[in-house]
This record gives sequence, structure tokens and C-alpha cells, in this order.
Amino acid sequence: MSHFSDINVIAYEGPSSKNPLAFKHYNPKEVVAGKTMEEHLRFATAYWHTFVADGTDMFGRGTALRPWDSYSGLDQAKFRVEASFEFYEKLGVPYFCFHDVDIAPEGDTLQETNKNLDVIVAMMKDYMKTSKAKLLWNTANMFTNPRYTHGAGTSSNAVVYARAAAQVKKGLEVGKELGAQNYVFWGGREGYETLLNTDMAFELDNLARLYRMAIDYAKEIGFDAQFLIEPKPKEPTKHQYDFDAATTIAFLYRYDLKDHFKLNLEANHATLAGHTFEHELRVARDNGVLGSLDANQGDVLLGWDTDEFPYDLYTTTLTMHEVLKNGGLGKGGVNFDAKVRRGSFEPVDLFYAHIAGMDAYAKGLKVAAKMIEDNYFENIVADRYSSFKSEVGESIVSGKATLKSLEEFALQNNPVNNKSGRLELIRATLNQYILGDL
Amino acid sequence: MSHFSDINVIAYEGPSSKNPLAFKHYNPKEVVAGKTMEEHLRFATAYWHTFVADGTDMFGRGTALRPWDSYSGLDQAKFRVEASFEFYEKLGVPYFCFHDVDIAPEGDTLQETNKNLDVIVAMMKDYMKTSKAKLLWNTANMFTNPRYTHGAGTSSNAVVYARAAAQVKKGLEVGKELGAQNYVFWGGREGYETLLNTDMAFELDNLARLYRMAIDYAKEIGFDAQFLIEPKPKEPTKHQYDFDAATTIAFLYRYDLKDHFKLNLEANHATLAGHTFEHELRVARDNGVLGSLDANQGDVLLGWDTDEFPYDLYTTTLTMHEVLKNGGLGKGGVNFDAKVRRGSFEPVDLFYAHIAGMDAYAKGLKVAAKMIEDNYFENIVADRYSSFKSEVGESIVSGKATLKSLEEFALQNNPVNNKSGRLELIRATLNQYILGDL
Amino acid sequence: MSHFSDINVIAYEGPSSKNPLAFKHYNPKEVVAGKTMEEHLRFATAYWHTFVADGTDMFGRGTALRPWDSYSGLDQAKFRVEASFEFYEKLGVPYFCFHDVDIAPEGDTLQETNKNLDVIVAMMKDYMKTSKAKLLWNTANMFTNPRYTHGAGTSSNAVVYARAAAQVKKGLEVGKELGAQNYVFWGGREGYETLLNTDMAFELDNLARLYRMAIDYAKEIGFDAQFLIEPKPKEPTKHQYDFDAATTIAFLYRYDLKDHFKLNLEANHATLAGHTFEHELRVARDNGVLGSLDANQGDVLLGWDTDEFPYDLYTTTLTMHEVLKNGGLGKGGVNFDAKVRRGSFEPVDLFYAHIAGMDAYAKGLKVAAKMIEDNYFENIVADRYSSFKSEVGESIVSGKATLKSLEEFALQNNPVNNKSGRLELIRATLNQYILGDL
Amino acid sequence: MSHFSDINVIAYEGPSSKNPLAFKHYNPKEVVAGKTMEEHLRFATAYWHTFVADGTDMFGRGTALRPWDSYSGLDQAKFRVEASFEFYEKLGVPYFCFHDVDIAPEGDTLQETNKNLDVIVAMMKDYMKTSKAKLLWNTANMFTNPRYTHGAGTSSNAVVYARAAAQVKKGLEVGKELGAQNYVFWGGREGYETLLNTDMAFELDNLARLYRMAIDYAKEIGFDAQFLIEPKPKEPTKHQYDFDAATTIAFLYRYDLKDHFKLNLEANHATLAGHTFEHELRVARDNGVLGSLDANQGDVLLGWDTDEFPYDLYTTTLTMHEVLKNGGLGKGGVNFDAKVRRGSFEPVDLFYAHIAGMDAYAKGLKVAAKMIEDNYFENIVADRYSSFKSEVGESIVSGKATLKSLEEFALQNNPVNNKSGRLELIRATLNQYILGDL
Repeated sequence: MSHFSDINVIAYEGPSSKNPLAFKHYNPKEVVAGKTMEEHLRFATAYWHTFVADGTDMFGRGTALRPWDSYSGLDQAKFRVEASFEFYEKLGVPYFCFHDVDIAPEGDTLQETNKNLDVIVAMMKDYMKTSKAKLLWNTANMFTNPRYTHGAGTSSNAVVYARAAAQVKKGLEVGKELGAQNYVFWGGREGYETLLNTDMAFELDNLARLYRMAIDYAKEIGFDAQFLIEPKPKEPTKHQYDFDAATTIAFLYRYDLKDHFKLNLEANHATLAGHTFEHELRVARDNGVLGSLDANQGDVLLGWDTDEFPYDLYTTTLTMHEVLKNGGLGKGGVNFDAKVRRGSFEPVDLFYAHIAGMDAYAKGLKVAAKMIEDNYFENIVADRYSSFKSEVGESIVSGKATLKSLEEFALQNNPVNNKSGRLELIRATLNQYILGDL
Repeated sequence: MSHFSDINVIAYEGPSSKNPLAFKHYNPKEVVAGKTMEEHLRFATAYWHTFVADGTDMFGRGTALRPWDSYSGLDQAKFRVEASFEFYEKLGVPYFCFHDVDIAPEGDTLQETNKNLDVIVAMMKDYMKTSKAKLLWNTANMFTNPRYTHGAGTSSNAVVYARAAAQVKKGLEVGKELGAQNYVFWGGREGYETLLNTDMAFELDNLARLYRMAIDYAKEIGFDAQFLIEPKPKEPTKHQYDFDAATTIAFLYRYDLKDHFKLNLEANHATLAGHTFEHELRVARDNGVLGSLDANQGDVLLGWDTDEFPYDLYTTTLTMHEVLKNGGLGKGGVNFDAKVRRGSFEPVDLFYAHIAGMDAYAKGLKVAAKMIEDNYFENIVADRYSSFKSEVGESIVSGKATLKSLEEFALQNNPVNNKSGRLELIRATLNQYILGDL
Repeated sequence: MSHFSDINVIAYEGPSSKNPLAFKHYNPKEVVAGKTMEEHLRFATAYWHTFVADGTDMFGRGTALRPWDSYSGLDQAKFRVEASFEFYEKLGVPYFCFHDVDIAPEGDTLQETNKNLDVIVAMMKDYMKTSKAKLLWNTANMFTNPRYTHGAGTSSNAVVYARAAAQVKKGLEVGKELGAQNYVFWGGREGYETLLNTDMAFELDNLARLYRMAIDYAKEIGFDAQFLIEPKPKEPTKHQYDFDAATTIAFLYRYDLKDHFKLNLEANHATLAGHTFEHELRVARDNGVLGSLDANQGDVLLGWDTDEFPYDLYTTTLTMHEVLKNGGLGKGGVNFDAKVRRGSFEPVDLFYAHIAGMDAYAKGLKVAAKMIEDNYFENIVADRYSSFKSEVGESIVSGKATLKSLEEFALQNNPVNNKSGRLELIRATLNQYILGDL
Repeated sequence: MSHFSDINVIAYEGPSSKNPLAFKHYNPKEVVAGKTMEEHLRFATAYWHTFVADGTDMFGRGTALRPWDSYSGLDQAKFRVEASFEFYEKLGVPYFCFHDVDIAPEGDTLQETNKNLDVIVAMMKDYMKTSKAKLLWNTANMFTNPRYTHGAGTSSNAVVYARAAAQVKKGLEVGKELGAQNYVFWGGREGYETLLNTDMAFELDNLARLYRMAIDYAKEIGFDAQFLIEPKPKEPTKHQYDFDAATTIAFLYRYDLKDHFKLNLEANHATLAGHTFEHELRVARDNGVLGSLDANQGDVLLGWDTDEFPYDLYTTTLTMHEVLKNGGLGKGGVNFDAKVRRGSFEPVDLFYAHIAGMDAYAKGLKVAAKMIEDNYFENIVADRYSSFKSEVGESIVSGKATLKSLEEFALQNNPVNNKSGRLELIRATLNQYILGDL
């Protein structure tokens, strides 16, 4: 049965195609920088935004028209599974990602919830036998249910904490069952509404404990996915503990968890934290914890998570530059944690949006690969830091220099001359690269 | 000779005083929570804002009318020293803080600059024999001089780096000479304008190397001040490396420097980073690195460092609450890194401003002490987390719990009930505490 | 039947009361500046936040525990009416406000929706015969229903526009029936998601047409409420047409509607637009369009409408200062467009929150009245602008001056001296006023 | 004499040029949409950023290396004039803009200041006889001098106001002398630091009076330039009166000045006010007051005016789309109110930066022209609003509809159907246009 029967995606037609359902840049088998686009990008569809969300916002009910609108409960969940695999195939998206509650309805009890999950997981596993689509990552949604009002792994309530632990346990089992390549923790309620009633240190101790239990249990059941933490500064809470990459890294150091986790970085979360996406990627790369991407974009003039599909070519280019310099994403991928606008409520908009995002990333990949091939940024950087190849420079880098030895040098070297950073020229050249002029 | 002869500060007149030059809340010898206010607060005047700054902003020349206006060079520097000690005494401020370039003019060479410094440091030392004022901290200004355009300890130029090292060396010597209780690093140019031409990892490696050299040299000369790093997210650079407390802590862990540093936290830097001041204080306190305060306030509707004198009683109360819970600030203090507005250009405004800030902090101290005496927040927190005293709670906190044991518990505990967080009531009560109603 | 039977509000116990259900500052019959507090403040409860909202946010389902939880449809609506009048009485809130869809469920057709409304409006009218509570304002919710995705009065769809007009018509009839003192337009969807597909000029022309129809119809049916427009810069849309007070005033001028409207200003909308609340109030006051207040507060470190109950005494004081200088709010009032936090989910939190807000405004009123009595700001202002009483000053104010005459004066008046603006002293004194020291 | 003798700009080499001093897109005589690029764009160099600014920021002294570094006073001013005309010619920039104090040093008295101005203006006039460069606009800098601390046209000091009037008078005379096409008012200090000491209504009345005097005097001397007001929300003041386009339009309406002014809109000021640049342009266009552009860009993650050269192709495209739809800019132009970064301190960076900006605008123009030629947005809009061609739609647009007539229609039209807004597809297609794929 087909749920998107009237929608015909065209695999690749080239940049000048006027067909809105054709790819203009993403050509999965095309080789760029030694690998196919498909291998580089490892695109994933976010189950929640694409198969569950309905366009609801804080001031309005859902607008989305969806094939599964007339079903409910487990029937609706099954219909969504069917539709999702049709969607992956039509688009040629090789991965998908989900929270537990996206795929199966919660029951009145944990027992019932897990039973519902089992039904859908079995169905998915069955579909995956014949589909090319694989599970990039799964996670437990520990923020939507009212019980998590005060947090899950950082709840002020031990009973809630236990429930969260049980949910993580099931999540790990589901991940193993479906061969998930990663398992994600996003702490939507792991933060505070006000410090006035919060014991932050105690809550973080507990969160670290939960992570250790998860590591132990994954080992116990032989689930070898990469664990990922996804930073976000705020929303829904006033302040989330995993504020940004650096904050999360500080946490991992403090609790001696750094070897067990990488980061799942999201563009919109980066800008909400006051950083560019490339900054967050660089921090993670430099710290050896660049794991996976939630590819979307925010509106920097708005202060909430708009989760727009990514179309900004500056960002996709600089993102893919970081990814290429990282040697790729390993088990990670490029997940469209993005939603069609509330006013784009027809099923075909889901296709337009994914094509927009995939093309923007494919173009970004090609531009970044060309710049690396030309050693564009590399040459700039090598030139800027060349004085560290001098004698005094070497003494600094090798650790031999002391304040005294450097003072001696400085006393002989008045005044100091610098070179221009050439930012304007760099940006103009970046434009040329993006426009394909170079 | 008196520079502020027409200004007569009244030590303490009580809250209802209408004398603008009288303290209304700060009564240095009054005992609060077991110590005098003076001991708790350890107020410091920032030399740069009070004795150097002239009200210049990016769109206007200086407006300030100052006793030292008609002097220049070393003469002006000496005049400022005289005036500064008169100022400390008139206000009863027990500490001051400075950057090297605040107190003595830079010469054409490092040699000359150091010579100028020596003159002024000797003069200050002399003054300090009879004055009660002590040096809370000093630091090297490695951001104003054009040579630091691309950074100091993170410069792309090894020659600049060497110069910075020489400047730090002198700074440590000056600190030792004047008995500084702390030595501060604020990396105004330690960041980047664009990642496109920046090797962030290399720059941070170099910064850590500079810190290690400083530690070694301080040890060598027997300078036992507490080292402090002051986070700021941005401005003047697009992105500063010590973005906030958590980022700085991640850096300290990564380079194994955590035992050697504490943080000098500034209110306005906190809000520029998207945090409340109390958040930054809590992060530092929980990580054992709460060092000292730059007490000012920003305008949260403006995106730059306004460095206003602190008057918001909510913030001073919650700040002092964190300080009291930290067992005080140790060698640190409450430094007014704050400037009078450009339109408040008369000398007397410097006094009004400091009185405003000192009174706001004194009131905050008294309110916080009362809340702690009443166990106000403590009771709220104890009640909220009480379930962690239960059997399942104990198993979590002790580390005995596993995902399995918690799942077993959760399966028997459907549904879960929470307690209200009572935020509105807490805030209303906080108002009562601030208004002195309770 | 009582829905809040276990909750006993204490009318007034004074500042030092420890009873969380007692008023500490709001004493309705107490006379301040010539009128009772009740007359000054004209408090209103927002039906939507208090009797409809359930704590849902973009990442979580509702948490609220409410007496009407087990009902649905019209039964629930009736239950809410009962509960609401009990609530007003318990708290002593003299007014309430609602959107049409808050009070009665929408039906499948306009006919059915209007029928439901009629049932509830009749019931309310009945209650109002014996209750002291009056309707401060009502409005039509033209943003929640999916049909308004692309706007209502600015919809790109003429059929939607017609429906919106019908809804406004019914809203005016309901307002007349219940004796509403004002009628509000808040354009939650009157804006755009992107200019790329938007004819802004056309949409605004249509909005003005709708307003004119409303004016005509109100006149036709003899409904003499004050019309109010409520500005908000963004959220839910990317950009709302009534961005702030000034933007709305420009609109009113452009379409010659200024005589027919005043503004309903909200604190949280002000800060989202980059303004203080007092700025928006001042703009409205100076333009003669200060109508009514949505009293809440935002979190200035968050970028969305948090709609917190107001507790910041600086804001309530400066707000009431503007209101007093305006000669009061006329038909307007102080409506708590505020919601309890998601974690404050018990019924009693609704009471705590309203008490917090009412006390904060009552205290603000008293402080502002004292400042006006003392001519505190008035004296500062009179002094600052005193040079406009001089000859040259008079020539400017009277309109007699020309560039030539002023140049002549300037040529004789080198240099120019200014007076300090004394901001720091002003703020310190404001603290004294708030603390009740003066 | 040549000041930039080692810098050789290449007029146009096409997109693939690797010469950093070659234009890649700006080809002045190339015809686009019926006019030459030169005629469309009317580029101007900002005298202050290019010939005066030295890279100073709030935390650092100037870094710029400039040919005129070794001169001072009037000599330096003359040197700058020489250099500026060489600069215009090398780049092929047809216009320039200045503040009075940019071109000539202020003297101790107004008399002396005006004398200095006369010297330089005469020199410029002489240069303009042979140069192609013309004066796009001039203005009076009434924000840098300390006398304007509390404002100029809105000063609390009548003597300052008179001085400002004298300065405007001279500005108009200078403009006339040099054939300026526009005269700009940017109110850098026309705002407030705090409302607590400010009579906003009085200040705005005075500002309007100043504008009227200027209109009268311009008429008197036969200076027929277009008057422009440049909005900016804040910085240097906490709140500037001309916050954004809409606020300025409200002011013009209120004081009946709308026929005498258009707006000079700046990209960075737009984003500081929370708007996209295209929003501000649209508001001005719809209100008939789109005058001229200050072409730069801000960093939306920073909260101050970074005044970067414009390189974002999305913005330049949408900007030129608005300009083309406006039928061009009339007397206005595209002024680079932009500064090279502090780290780009060499003279050649000034050229790189202008080339970057001019190419980005030229590319934007070409893309926008192509979209208009294809009726790209026009078709989208026509389709979206097509229902207003129906009977009910016509009744609305013609003003015949009433709430009653529309209710009648609505009662017959349940439910309502909308069309998708297709935002994601529009954005993907915009990418294709920018990349030149279509």
C-alpha cells in the first residue's frame, strides 16, 4: 500500500532542474573526496518531525494533513511505520532516528508501554529486512510525559528517576534489536526552572550515575552503539545542563565519562547558545568528541528552537568542512532534526523540505571538498602561524620556553609587527567557492 | 593634597538617610552571619574604570571631568595614585585592582614600560604603608595594545606571544611586590574573529603553555597569590575562549590545570553568555573554583558589556547567597568592575556609584544571611529531594542501583506522582525577604 | 458547589505575614494617591491561563491538576465558569478577560460554535448578576484554529478573512452582552513567516478594513467598549505586524484609525521587542493611547513568551509610575496574562501566583505614589531641562527659533557645559524608595 | 601624488578570477534590467570608516596602517582628501558620504570649526571638478563631541540644542556647496540612557522643531537634497528614538513631517532592532519612504554594531529585490557604512573589503533581476492571494463588505481550506537562483 502514491521524487536531475521533486545536488553515488556522497553524508529522517508532528505550536493546533490522520493508537503507529519506509525509499534516505514514544503509544503502565514498543519494533525489524534504511540512532523521550516535569535523570523525585532508568534500559534493548549505530541522550528536562529550588550538584551526580548504569547495561547486553549527548542551552527548561559542547565536555571530564561519549550537535541549539554551528563542531572535533549532526537551522532573530530545514549554504559548507577535517562522522550521520513550517502542511512539503536540506548539504560537501583540495583554509592558517616555526616559536611549542626566556627574547624584539588577518578577502573568496566560481 | 576635597562621604547613616554621600546599608564593622560586613564583602575599586576611563564610547569622546585631566604621562600616573588612595580612604574601600597599563604609561619599548611601572609600583608601595587599602588583584592588559590584535597567549604570532609572556612575568613580579592576593587572567583577545583563519586547538595549547609558565614562575619567585581566570563570551572578539564558567572549567580539565586556578566571575559577562550571575556562581561553587567577583551589572536588553554599577537587589541577594554557601570568597573579593555612565561625568558620580554598589551588596548580604539563618532555600530543597532518602533513592545515590533494579522498581510503581515546584510562592517570599518583611 | 474548597485566601495580613495565602501588600480599600487600590489597579484574571491552560509546552504534555479535569466539551466549559467565579471571589479579583474559544468549545461549524458560546455567555451573565466580577475585556481567538495558519485579518485567503470577520462580529456581540469595558485585538497570526511569499501592504490594508468594519458594527449595536490593540513582535509568527507600541501607532496613523484605538501593552511582549515595559508605556502615554496592561514578566535571557507572573518590583514600580502619570487607565486594567510554571501544577499555585502578582503591583503602586508625592522624578526632570526656560530655550520651545538665530546664539556661546545625568544616584534612590527607606 | 600606488584594482575579470584586486561580479557598464549596474547601485564609500577610522574598539587602540598616519590636524585632513579621491577612482566608486567632523578637525570654537570645514570643502569642490566622484550625502556628526552626551536635537540643554542647530545649518550649506544629493540625520545620541530622568515627549517635540528649521533653511538656500533619517535601535544610547523604520514613520506622521523625509536604512541597524534588512526595506517601500541604503552586515550572534562589509548573498539578493520593486533608489544609493575588521589593518584591506561588498551587491542585483524577470516571487504571491479576486474577496478589497455580509458568507462556508505556503520549496529555489542554476 502506498501512502505517498502521488509524489514522485526524481533521484538527480542536476542544478538547473525545475522539478521541485528532483535532487539538484545530491547524487548519492557521486564520488567526492574519495567517498560517495552517500557515505559522507549518511542522511537520516527524524521520525518525530516527519511522521508524528502535526504543526502544533504554542499558539495553535496542528495543521498537518497526513495519511495517518484518521487512525489512532497502535493502528496509527503501524500506519506510520509503513509510511516511513515508503518515505525513506522514495527519497533515498539511508537512515532514520526516533524516540521511543514517537514509534509507539505510551500505555497506562510501563508494562503496557513496553508491550506497545515491542509490537512496533518487531514490525520495524521486519521492514528493515527488505529496506535499505537503517537506524542511525534511537533515544528515550524523557521530557514529554508530565512525570518528567522536574527532570528525568536529574529529577528531584527518586521514583521518577527509577522510571527514567527503566525507559533507558528499554531504549538500549530496542537499539540493540534494531541495530542502532548510536544511542542519544538529549536532556530536554535535565536542567532547572530556577536555581532557587534546585540542588544542581546533586542532580548532576545523579545524571552521571544514570550514564554509568547505561554504559554497564549496554556492555551487559552487547549493544555496541556509540553513546551521544546532545547539548542544548535552554527550552523547554530555563537552563539546560548540557548547555553547549564545552559545558558537556566539562561534565564528561568531571565525571570521568569522556571515553564513553561523543556529541550529537544541532545547528539550532548552537545558535541558541550564542555560537555558530561550526564553532560547536570545532570544539567537539578538537576534543575528539564529534559524533553526529542534527542538521537544521534556526532563525537567529528568534529566540526559540525553530528547527527549520537547513538551506543556508554558508553553514552547510563550513559544517562539511569540519566533518571532512574530522575524517568523517564515524558511526554518526546527518539527521534532519527539522520540521516543515506550520504553513507547509501538505505531505509533499515533507519531500520538498528534505530535498532542500539534502541538496544544501550535498552542495556544502562539494564546496568544502574543493576548498580542502585547494588547501584554501589550510594555506591561510599555515601562513598565519608560520612564526611558530622560528626558534622562539619552536621553544614555545616544545614547552622549553619559560617566562624568563621569552622576556629575554621580547626585550630584543621591540616593536612587534603583525600580518593582516584578511577577513574580508577570505569571505569574498568563500563566496566564490560557494558560487562555484573557483 | 586633596583631589576630592569637596566630597564628604558619610560612613553610615542608615536606610532612611537622604544624604547622597551617606551609606545606607554598608556598615563595615556590623556583624552579619558571624563576620563583619567588611570581612564578607572585601570590596575593591577597579583602577581602570575609576581612575583611567574617561567616558569614551564607540561613538563619542570622553566626557569625564577628573582632577588629573591637565596632566599626562608619568605625572598623570602619579597624580592618579595620589587620588586613588584618597578615594579608597574616603569611601572605606579596603581593596583595589589594576591592569599594568592602568597605573603606568606604556613606553616605546618593553624596557621603558617596565621602568615606568617600577616608578609607580614603588610609589604605590609607599602609599600602602600608611593606607589601609590592599591590592586584591593585578593583571596584565594584553588587549589594548595593537600588537595584541590577533591575541596574546593565543596570538598567531610567536613574537607577540613572547611579548605577552614577558608582560605576565612583570605582572607576577608587580603582584608579589605589592602583596596582591590574587592574579587575574582575562583573555580579552584570546578568542577569534573568524574560525576561517584560526587554528583553535593550537591556540589553546599555547594558552595552556603560558599558564604553566606563569605557575612555574610564581613558584620560583614565591608569589603565592590565587590565580584566577575571568570568563567572558565575546567582545572585543567575536568569540572568546573562556566563554563562561563551564567552558573555562572544561579547559582547565583538558590541560590538567584545575588545581591551579579559580574563576573571577563577572555579572555582565554572565548575562552576555546567556546565564544569570547566580548560575555562573553556582557552577563555579559546585566545581570548587569560585574565586572572586567582578561586581557590576549589564543591561539585558543590550548586547554589549555595559559594566553598570550593581543596584539590582535580586542579583546582589542571590550572589551573596552563593558566596555565603561557598563559605566566603577566600582570597577573593567584590571588585566593582563598573563604570559610571558617560552622562555621569563629574567626580562626585564616582562616589555616588560606589555607594550605590556597596549598599546594594550590603543589603544583599543581609537578606541572604537572613534567608540562610531561616534555612529558607535549604528547607525547600530538602523537601523537594526527600525521596532520595527512601530505599530506592538510597540505592541510586549510593551507586548500587542498576538499570535492572530500577526497572523492577518502576514496574511496581505506576503511576508516578510529583510535587509542585512552587516557583511563584518562592518568588513572592523572596520579595518579602528583600523588602525586609520577614 | 466549591471547586477550591480547601483553599482559604486571607484578604490582607500585612507585609510580615507568613501565610502563603495572605495578601501582604494588596489591601483593596486602602487609599493611595486619592483612590483605593482596587480603583487604581483594576486587576483581572486571564481566563485562558487560569482556567484553560494545562501546562503544555512545546516539549511536554500538560501537567496541571484541575477540578475540571474529568469533564469535557460543554460540561467542562460550564464547570470552568463555576470555578472561575469562585476563584474571583476568593481572591477578590474584580475583573476577568477571555477569548471566545476559552469559554466555549468550538463546534464543527460556525453555527455550532456560536451556539456553544451563547450557552456559556448566558451562564456567565447569570453569574455576573450576583458576583462582583466584571468583564474587563473579551477578544476573538483567531490564531489557534488551523484555518488561521496564514493569518486572520491578514490571511492570504479571502474565505478565512470572512470567517475571521464573522468571529469578530460575534465577539462584539458577546462583549456587549456581558458589558465588556474593552475589546481587544491581538494579532497572533497577523504577521508573516517569510516576506518571500507575502504581500505585506495588501495584508495591512485588509487588516485596516477589518478594523473599520468592527468600528462600524460596534456603533451599530451600541457597544461602547474601548478598542485595544495588543502589540507583540514575534511568536507565533516570525514577524508580527503589531511589533511594538510605535509600530502600532504608525499603523493607526497610516490608516487614520488613531482616534478609535488604544493599546493593551504586555510586559513580556515589550522585552521580546527589545524594550523595557516602561518604555512601551511611555510611548503609549505620550501618544495618548495608553489603554490597558497585560501584567506579566518575561525572562530576558530567554527568547520566547514565558508569561510569568510579575514579581519584579522595579518593573511594577515604574509601571505604576507611568499609570499614575497617565491619570490612570480609564476603562483599562491590570490583567494577569500570566501562567503558573509547568512545575507549579496544583490548583493552589494559581492562588499563590495571583497573590504574588497582586502584591507586587500593590507594592509598586505604593512606591510610585510616594515618589510622585515627593516629586522625585519630577524634580530631576525639571532641573535637567531648566535651560529651556532661558531666552534661547523659550525661542526653541515656542517655535520662533531658526537655524540662523540659533547659530548666532551658538557663535556667542563657546564652549558648552552640561550637567551630570546622575544615573547612579537615581538608581540608588530608587532602591531606597522600593525598600521603603524613604 | 599617489597614496595607494602599490595597489592595482582590476576593473572586472569575471567570477573565476583569482586576483584578489579584481571585480568578479561588478561590471559598471553591464546592463541589468534596463539600466547599467552603476546606475542601479550608486555605490558610495563612507569617509569615516575608510579614511578616518583606525580600528579602535572599546578594548583596544587603533591598529590601522594608513598613508596619513604621520600627519595631524588640517594637514592630515588634506592628505585624506587627496587619498580619498585616488581611492574612489581606483575602485570606480561613484559616490562618497561624510560627517562634517570626518573631513575637517573641530576647532576650539564653532567659528574655528567652520573655518576648517570651509578649507576642506573648497578643496573637495576643486577635486570634484575633475573626479567622477559625487557626494551622495553629508551629515552633521552630533554624537562624538562630549557636548552631545545628553543628545543634540533632543538634548536636555538648550545651549547644546542651539549648537546642534548651528551645526546642521553649516551641514546644509556644505551639502549645497558640494552638490549633495541627500542630507542625512542619524540621531546617535537622540535617545535616552534611562527614562528615569528623561522627558521623552518634550525631547521629541524639540527634535521635530529642529527638523522643521532644517526644512525651512534648506528651502531658503535652495538646497534641494532629499532629507533622510537613519533609524537605529540602540548604541550608543540605551534606546534611540528612531528605533526602526516603523518607529520613525510613526514620528513623521505625528509631527506631520512625512512628506519631507525618506529613510536611510542600514542592514546592521535592522538586525539590532530584531528585523531582517529586507523587512525594514519593505516597511519603507510600502510607506513610500525608501530612500537610501547603508550597506553593511552585522553579526547576528553579537549585540553591537559590527558594521561588517556585506558579503551575505541572501541579504544582498533580497535587498536588491526590494530596491528593484521600488523602482530604484532615486537620489539614494548604496553606501558602505562598513569597516574592515581590526585585524585587517593594511591599506589593501580597504580595497579587498570594498570589492567584496560591491561584488556581493552586484551578484545580488543580477539574481534579483533574474527572479523578477521570471516573476518568481510575483507568481507565488499572485497565486496565494488569488481568492481576493473572488466575489467575497472583491467585496473585502473594495470596502463593501461588512461584518454582517462576511458572517453570512462564513455561515455558508464551513470548513475553510488553505493552501500550503511552500516555504521550504521557495527557499530551495532561492538557493538555485543564487547559485545561478536557474
